[in-house]
Amino acid sequence: MKTSRVEAFSDGVFAVAITLLVLGIRVPTTNGSLITALADQWPAFAAFAISFLVIGIVWVNHHTLFHLLSHTDRVLLFVNLGLLMSIVLIPFVTALFAGYVATGGPQAPVAAALYNASMLLMGIGFQASVLWVSRHHELLREPLAPLTRRQQVRYGVGPIAYLACIPLAFASPVAVLIIDALVAVYYVFDQAAVQRADSPQPA
Amino acid sequence: MKTSRVEAFSDGVFAVAITLLVLGIRVPTTNGSLITALADQWPAFAAFAISFLVIGIVWVNHHTLFHLLSHTDRVLLFVNLGLLMSIVLIPFVTALFAGYVATGGPQAPVAAALYNASMLLMGIGFQASVLWVSRHHELLREPLAPLTRRQQVRYGVGPIAYLACIPLAFASPVAVLIIDALVAVYYVFDQAAVQRADSPQPA
Amino acid sequence: MKTSRVEAFSDGVFAVAITLLVLGIRVPTTNGSLITALADQWPAFAAFAISFLVIGIVWVNHHTLFHLLSHTDRVLLFVNLGLLMSIVLIPFVTALFAGYVATGGPQAPVAAALYNASMLLMGIGFQASVLWVSRHHELLREPLAPLTRRQQVRYGVGPIAYLACIPLAFASPVAVLIIDALVAVYYVFDQAAVQRADSPQPA
Amino acid sequence: MKTSRVEAFSDGVFAVAITLLVLGIRVPTTNGSLITALADQWPAFAAFAISFLVIGIVWVNHHTLFHLLSHTDRVLLFVNLGLLMSIVLIPFVTALFAGYVATGGPQAPVAAALYNASMLLMGIGFQASVLWVSRHHELLREPLAPLTRRQQVRYGVGPIAYLACIPLAFASPVAVLIIDALVAVYYVFDQAAVQRADSPQPA
Repeated sequence: MKTSRVEAFSDGVFAVAITLLVLGIRVPTTNGSLITALADQWPAFAAFAISFLVIGIVWVNHHTLFHLLSHTDRVLLFVNLGLLMSIVLIPFVTALFAGYVATGGPQAPVAAALYNASMLLMGIGFQASVLWVSRHHELLREPLAPLTRRQQVRYGVGPIAYLACIPLAFASPVAVLIIDALVAVYYVFDQAAVQRADSPQPA
Repeated sequence: MKTSRVEAFSDGVFAVAITLLVLGIRVPTTNGSLITALADQWPAFAAFAISFLVIGIVWVNHHTLFHLLSHTDRVLLFVNLGLLMSIVLIPFVTALFAGYVATGGPQAPVAAALYNASMLLMGIGFQASVLWVSRHHELLREPLAPLTRRQQVRYGVGPIAYLACIPLAFASPVAVLIIDALVAVYYVFDQAAVQRADSPQPA
Repeated sequence: MKTSRVEAFSDGVFAVAITLLVLGIRVPTTNGSLITALADQWPAFAAFAISFLVIGIVWVNHHTLFHLLSHTDRVLLFVNLGLLMSIVLIPFVTALFAGYVATGGPQAPVAAALYNASMLLMGIGFQASVLWVSRHHELLREPLAPLTRRQQVRYGVGPIAYLACIPLAFASPVAVLIIDALVAVYYVFDQAAVQRADSPQPA
Repeated sequence: MKTSRVEAFSDGVFAVAITLLVLGIRVPTTNGSLITALADQWPAFAAFAISFLVIGIVWVNHHTLFHLLSHTDRVLLFVNLGLLMSIVLIPFVTALFAGYVATGGPQAPVAAALYNASMLLMGIGFQASVLWVSRHHELLREPLAPLTRRQQVRYGVGPIAYLACIPLAFASPVAVLIIDALVAVYYVFDQAAVQRADSPQPA
């Protein structure tokens, strides 16, 4: 089975999910200051930007992974479908996170924990794809080189941060929002800096 | 007419419909426990997951079917449009099913029956595509092999289960939800297990 | 400029617009009969099906037209953008038509007239694309054959029916709904029946 | 890294964002005149049309820019992601602009200023992509010719108009709406008129 149509379908899901994030930002109806009303909604904008970057980063990684394949098998199709399911849930958990952190009530930690649990699920989905590919060399164009230490660190940062944020959410949902933002920014700059030579590659 | 643009358009509709499913999960507004509020919405999550898998499975099958074609004719374009219409209705019937099963009122069986009727319609749309292709060998790259017994069983499971669930819904909508989930999981594992040699193929 | 990316973008817009139509069907919240509540919404289902077919038919025609081109120019890009704008408005006018015909109030004729005006606009957008292409042979792979009488009839049916339906809406919005359905069904069957030889083609 | 999948993902985001604009037009619920109710919503239609043209124009320019590339690097992937984020925000700021200009209250200037700030952000995102490409000739198929004076004017018109409209919004939001419309129309006609020889091109 060729990878091109899997990539096209996945790109479609990534593109729709990343764009649906905007529906999570409500147009405020206020007679007072619009600036104040929008500023009160800052968690919605922050969560939008973080989730946008996360989906964008996963898309770049997905792109890189599938670029290494000569074809796919049916297991990978369904592992990929699981990953896409976690991507599609992101607009929901983003709206949940933004809504409850904005009100700052007693349920804000739960919403922050669920957001990070969803990010973790997405990370697991991506790792499962990588694992399947790394054990089925017949899917690859050329054999994969073993991961460098730097790559191992990079792959570990996201899942470990998301896991750590689940208990941390009960101490401070806003701290979790900041950590999630830093993780996203880390990936953008780290990934933009890496040479192709440092990304998952043929030996 | 080449199949590539039909596949691109179909992939787009599959990708948008599968992603719109998330709009059926409401962000609860509660002052009490968020976990409880989300747990009360379990049918929305269950219906989301089932419909996601169903659309994903039909997409994989669509992929496999169109891969066998050298080109399409206009009848197949419109049969395909009928199939896509049934796919586009899935976010609606999913929200209907989730909403009425969650409240558990007297209309829950009707919603469950309509959900399965919609799944059945989608199955009929797909069978119609297969039938058209199997009778127009000029569309195929190579002649199709006759279906194996295993393939006949597989193709029959979904439509028969959906048909049986329509009356069953009036006994227990929750039982129907479980059967629909099992059908989706059956297809994922069965399809992931089959070798390419066992899927619809050239002789 | 190659046609492939214009086709990809257009396919994306067609796919999203055709799928957004489902958001126009409201999940009824009723304590009475769900079947009755859905039956009361019949204009929403009818308008959904008609608009789905219309967008599908225009997509097929768009497909056929662009298939004849070797490349596009910037004017055609913007004429195409105008056509896509009319496509994107269809979910809005469909919801308008469905909502006002369902209530049957004094504004139903206006909604029906606006729906048909929007369809007419879309037809004009498509005719403008055809006209531009027919006057810029350098965009074509091979010279176009003159339209046959049958093709002239076919191209005329839609715009004339939509134009006639605008005043007719003030006599009977339901009659207009039926005519719009018949026009869509006519195009499906007529187009499915035509041989490639009868569609716009090289001489 | 090949440009084809970046283009496919970007096209998906452009297509979804341009189509989601229609969700900003509310179906009015009125017992009085539907024409009057729709006419009262004229800023929603005007903002829809302007934003549709803006996204369409940026898509055409994006198309032209990526057509010049032989491949992309990771920095460009993330600069492009930033541009796409500004595109995805357009349905939000469009709804904001339309809603507050329609009511004509004291917050209308703020909404108009934010709309233009968002357009400016999008312009900056696009300029950043152009700048990166112009400094990394290894990404290009052939060296770029220096910009002509006409191209410099064209590239400057949008950002300067959007910047000027931010303070102007506090004098007259409606004047800003008209200027934004004129800028969009200018680009459509100017771009449709230019020969390929006058667009960013190899030397």
